[in-house]
Amino acid sequence: MQTLTEKILSRAAGKNVSPGDVTEINTDIVAFHDLTGYHVIEVMEKAGLEKIFDKSKIVIAFDHLAPPPDIRSAEIQEYIRKFVKSMGLPNFHDINFGILHEILIERYANPGQVIVAADSHTTTSGAVGAFAQGMGATDIAAAVITGKTWLMVPEPFKVNLKGEPAKWINGKDVALKILGEFKADYFNGMSIEVHVENPKSFPMDYRATVSNMGIEMNADALMFVPDEETINYIKTMRGYEPQTVKPDENAKYTDEYEIELDKMEPLVAAPSSVDNVRTAREVEGTEVDQVYIGSCTNGRLSDFETAAKIMKGKKVKSRCIAIPASYEMFKKAMDLGYIETLVNSGCIVTYGTCGPCLGGHFGVAGPGETIVSTSSRNFKGRMGSVDSKVYLSGPAVAAATAIEGKIVDPRDVE
Amino acid sequence: MQTLTEKILSRAAGKNVSPGDVTEINTDIVAFHDLTGYHVIEVMEKAGLEKIFDKSKIVIAFDHLAPPPDIRSAEIQEYIRKFVKSMGLPNFHDINFGILHEILIERYANPGQVIVAADSHTTTSGAVGAFAQGMGATDIAAAVITGKTWLMVPEPFKVNLKGEPAKWINGKDVALKILGEFKADYFNGMSIEVHVENPKSFPMDYRATVSNMGIEMNADALMFVPDEETINYIKTMRGYEPQTVKPDENAKYTDEYEIELDKMEPLVAAPSSVDNVRTAREVEGTEVDQVYIGSCTNGRLSDFETAAKIMKGKKVKSRCIAIPASYEMFKKAMDLGYIETLVNSGCIVTYGTCGPCLGGHFGVAGPGETIVSTSSRNFKGRMGSVDSKVYLSGPAVAAATAIEGKIVDPRDVE
Repeated sequence: MQTLTEKILSRAAGKNVSPGDVTEINTDIVAFHDLTGYHVIEVMEKAGLEKIFDKSKIVIAFDHLAPPPDIRSAEIQEYIRKFVKSMGLPNFHDINFGILHEILIERYANPGQVIVAADSHTTTSGAVGAFAQGMGATDIAAAVITGKTWLMVPEPFKVNLKGEPAKWINGKDVALKILGEFKADYFNGMSIEVHVENPKSFPMDYRATVSNMGIEMNADALMFVPDEETINYIKTMRGYEPQTVKPDENAKYTDEYEIELDKMEPLVAAPSSVDNVRTAREVEGTEVDQVYIGSCTNGRLSDFETAAKIMKGKKVKSRCIAIPASYEMFKKAMDLGYIETLVNSGCIVTYGTCGPCLGGHFGVAGPGETIVSTSSRNFKGRMGSVDSKVYLSGPAVAAATAIEGKIVDPRDVE
Repeated sequence: MQTLTEKILSRAAGKNVSPGDVTEINTDIVAFHDLTGYHVIEVMEKAGLEKIFDKSKIVIAFDHLAPPPDIRSAEIQEYIRKFVKSMGLPNFHDINFGILHEILIERYANPGQVIVAADSHTTTSGAVGAFAQGMGATDIAAAVITGKTWLMVPEPFKVNLKGEPAKWINGKDVALKILGEFKADYFNGMSIEVHVENPKSFPMDYRATVSNMGIEMNADALMFVPDEETINYIKTMRGYEPQTVKPDENAKYTDEYEIELDKMEPLVAAPSSVDNVRTAREVEGTEVDQVYIGSCTNGRLSDFETAAKIMKGKKVKSRCIAIPASYEMFKKAMDLGYIETLVNSGCIVTYGTCGPCLGGHFGVAGPGETIVSTSSRNFKGRMGSVDSKVYLSGPAVAAATAIEGKIVDPRDVE
């Protein structure tokens, strides 16, 4: 009897492995972006090992520095483009494609795979049932060269999502619920496997948010057990039906936790920690300078659908920056009129850049400013000045806050 | 008998003035943006003169640092917001409105006015027949306090635009034609007055481009003589009919120059000077890494209409960044489907930022890169690295180039 974690890692190790085992594994996808890619390639060059285990399994996307905010960023991207060209890598996504983690779930990640990438939010691909983990540039350089990495098999932890989400509840509220309950360091050395009772009630967009925040929980991986929603999503996005893998019926978990989705209410992570979780109502009325809707955490179609529902016909009182995580998400949001609604409300829009999430560019937080953001981190200085304050939320709280100019529970403004 | 320059400056001086006179004049609009605004306010504070001659005549827009690409930029904007609030200034435009010069012609500038602003491209408002000049932050601080400035009345130079523009010809080609003919320092101490034979054939968007490039010609001002197009534009944008002012029939000009619009062909300014003018065909085939369509020079509706016509149904081969100069221009381009067409072609879009034009952010040129840009300047390092090369062009050459991946005359790809 094996958990999903044990099944995936046993296949990848070529032998049965159990929690606590230290093992070498084969990887199915190795990825990096512009900011870390530079170091990955640098390590390969310094090691004199500019070879690649399987070109079809390397995925590269420009997102952190897209479009380049300074000369150095442009130079780094040129350097990586030259590498891509000289190596003949087919899966390269320049500045107009999107954020790496979003591109991975849209185009590449499959259930049961092992995915490693040079970015902490690699856990996002757990949404489709892949064991996905972020690693440093040196480890990723080794994986690019050999196709292999090593790890200690994590302890499996089970989360059960029951019922239908209450109004305005999405993946972010579930992630914050777990973080509020267990705190940010609890899941160190564990992998979280999420079982969804009603697959359709918790769609891929929501799953991606929860998996993305897996690293904020300090989990080694956060996977949704593949189900009909997983299959439908991949079929819709790519036109093929993926093979799936599930944990055995009576697989043993270290512990488990149940969330009743219908009893949830909109949450935020107050400054300056992801686990400083409050209900939106507890911090209602907090004046907000800028709202950011986007990032690899919450930059998907359903996020902009939610924001558009709330903003339709209203004007923002806080500045609002809305950035679909990828070209595909922007195009769909545009085709469905969400972009138009957001622009009519006064939002600044673009697509495919990490920009403000990491205080990179395109909306950096100034001293004394209060931000509400749908991104993943709110530690001091994350989005800019160390004297700014960041509240993390889902798209509903963020959109309602932008309209009101202060934090509000979206249920209170209907 | 007075030229337009003499009429406007005589009214503003409260006495008849002629070329060569040094005179104090009253200003009708005084403006600044985020990058220079900081210094304007600093000068006022240091002088202990934090008073304003007429709050309704001050216009402020955030554009160079919008949305803020770093903490310092956010801090500068906060500083200006506080000033705006404490002074109770009504005409303030935050990061989601647009580029100052575009906002001035859309909402504020009128024929016959004197407009000074802390940015060299203030000449743009000459498009509606205002005497508009850029000045340093100290001069603008003085104008904000007193409502006055001083200047030497420039020599008037007449340009006649005859006939209908040939296919794909717009304001940029006219500006480049003048620059190629006279070179960049010729019009020092002069004001250029442009007479349009068929007002409708050379609409406000085209005029704004030519006036904008007036400073590249080193002119003190570049004004279009107000006509029915001026009146229609202001009526359409603002709902009222402006008073106009025209030069006297036989006013004396230092010299004049005639352009036959129907005989023109698409032009570019090759690296690295605005007056290094070539036909697009002369540099055809030059490989291009990035194309930029936007800026206070060419970020208006007709520019995106042109780009959309050329790009429709095709995919870009060069990276392409398209930025309407204001919220209004983006909204109109969105409503008319141009934004959709550009995104479908693979362009990155946003609105209202100067960004790449000055190598600020959102698409800075890297070393070794070749850029085609609809902006105003191509000296070494203007758009980023000193080792990048910039070709300036109108939107037709830029859009066709993005599609082909190399410079091309749009007439050659139909």
